[in-house]
Amino acid sequence: MLSKSQINFLKSLQTKKERATQGLFLVEGFKSVIEFINSPYGVEAIYHTTSFDSNVLNLSRKINSFEISSAEMEKISSLKTPQHVAALVKIRVLPPLNNNLLKQKFSLVLDGIQDPGNLGTIIRIADWFGIQNVICSTDSVDVYNPKVVQASMGSLSRIDVFYEEIGRILAETDLPVFGALMQGESIYETDFGTHGLIVMGNEGNGMSRDVERLITRAVTIPRVGGAESLNVGIAAALFCSEINRKLPK
Amino acid sequence: MLSKSQINFLKSLQTKKERATQGLFLVEGFKSVIEFINSPYGVEAIYHTTSFDSNVLNLSRKINSFEISSAEMEKISSLKTPQHVAALVKIRVLPPLNNNLLKQKFSLVLDGIQDPGNLGTIIRIADWFGIQNVICSTDSVDVYNPKVVQASMGSLSRIDVFYEEIGRILAETDLPVFGALMQGESIYETDFGTHGLIVMGNEGNGMSRDVERLITRAVTIPRVGGAESLNVGIAAALFCSEINRKLPK
Repeated sequence: MLSKSQINFLKSLQTKKERATQGLFLVEGFKSVIEFINSPYGVEAIYHTTSFDSNVLNLSRKINSFEISSAEMEKISSLKTPQHVAALVKIRVLPPLNNNLLKQKFSLVLDGIQDPGNLGTIIRIADWFGIQNVICSTDSVDVYNPKVVQASMGSLSRIDVFYEEIGRILAETDLPVFGALMQGESIYETDFGTHGLIVMGNEGNGMSRDVERLITRAVTIPRVGGAESLNVGIAAALFCSEINRKLPK
Repeated sequence: MLSKSQINFLKSLQTKKERATQGLFLVEGFKSVIEFINSPYGVEAIYHTTSFDSNVLNLSRKINSFEISSAEMEKISSLKTPQHVAALVKIRVLPPLNNNLLKQKFSLVLDGIQDPGNLGTIIRIADWFGIQNVICSTDSVDVYNPKVVQASMGSLSRIDVFYEEIGRILAETDLPVFGALMQGESIYETDFGTHGLIVMGNEGNGMSRDVERLITRAVTIPRVGGAESLNVGIAAALFCSEINRKLPK
């Protein structure tokens, strides 16, 4: 049973400000909780409803777990349909991003992504295609937003998400900088090589001008039909897939 | 100004039952409304707030338009942030699906898609890649659900969405039936040829067994990293892109 102040505390983590102050966020759902337990993240506590057997959770180490009521779970949950388990997880402080971390591989760079569902989906895509680093501009949606965590389906536990002045990163890198743009060489014909940065723009406005002028290779997804644009998550997936298809095996 | 019963009527179209009874649905947002006006759909009426110049809307024909207040728009809207314009549009009754319609092209077949955002995204993808037909199993989410219409970003005005017993369609077709499955030949190596049906399964449970046994070519998206699955919209995009890449030019 949770006290009123505990409930308020857990609920407060739905705001970015409180997450930053406390250094904590909430992960909901059995599958995601398991993945965070088996990850570099520190798990502070687990909350589960009576209909849940907590034994299966304590896989690799001892974590305090609390049985709570469904009504309490509803109060602390950000979901319309709350799950049977949630975990209180420590925000991970990553080492500063440097050129060494980006060497010899592909990384995704996101310029001003606003929709939490899109960021979560892109993290899941990065995880599927083995892309370790996602670099967000500082004005992007917070990665510990409950909707991002939810949409990433546990992949956030494996992917490193950095917040950086991406203009500086792109200006300083010696990697090729591929940009997803409406005009450019066809993604199907682009030789991506074995490493580089893949830059995706904001949902409505595309890439900011300062970022776009740092693109060294403008790449486009050829359109056949009538749609004006593709969702940024879809575009990111098509880039990751084409890069992967062409990688020397 | 709208009467209370007009507001209730427009609001009632958020439910599938009322849409089916009335044969009408609501399209919201300037861009989408324009696209439906310039489409085979019949537009019954346009509602716009004072901050909107209605002249730009009457492009190709005379449509009754009504200036309403922002408060009224909020009442009839299904959006958190209502737009300045909405259109009352007639549900289009498509001719029965037959083999002729599917000949010499690729069509998407969706088995039990439940999430309206996913269906809308897939319609937008189909539109981008020039795929005219999307065939949904009868237990799929309704295509005139406001969230589907919204996520399709106007593409619904150009794509034909059928609801069919897809088991029967797949059993009767002489087209190759490609299925997006966890096991199968790599999508990158699959020769899709010039026509066929592309079957995608439900978000959580994948394809139903009766549908899966009618797949003639099991195709998979190779995984590199740790994510357990890809979102069905992402998978649909990767299939459409690969098919398009390999089409004889």
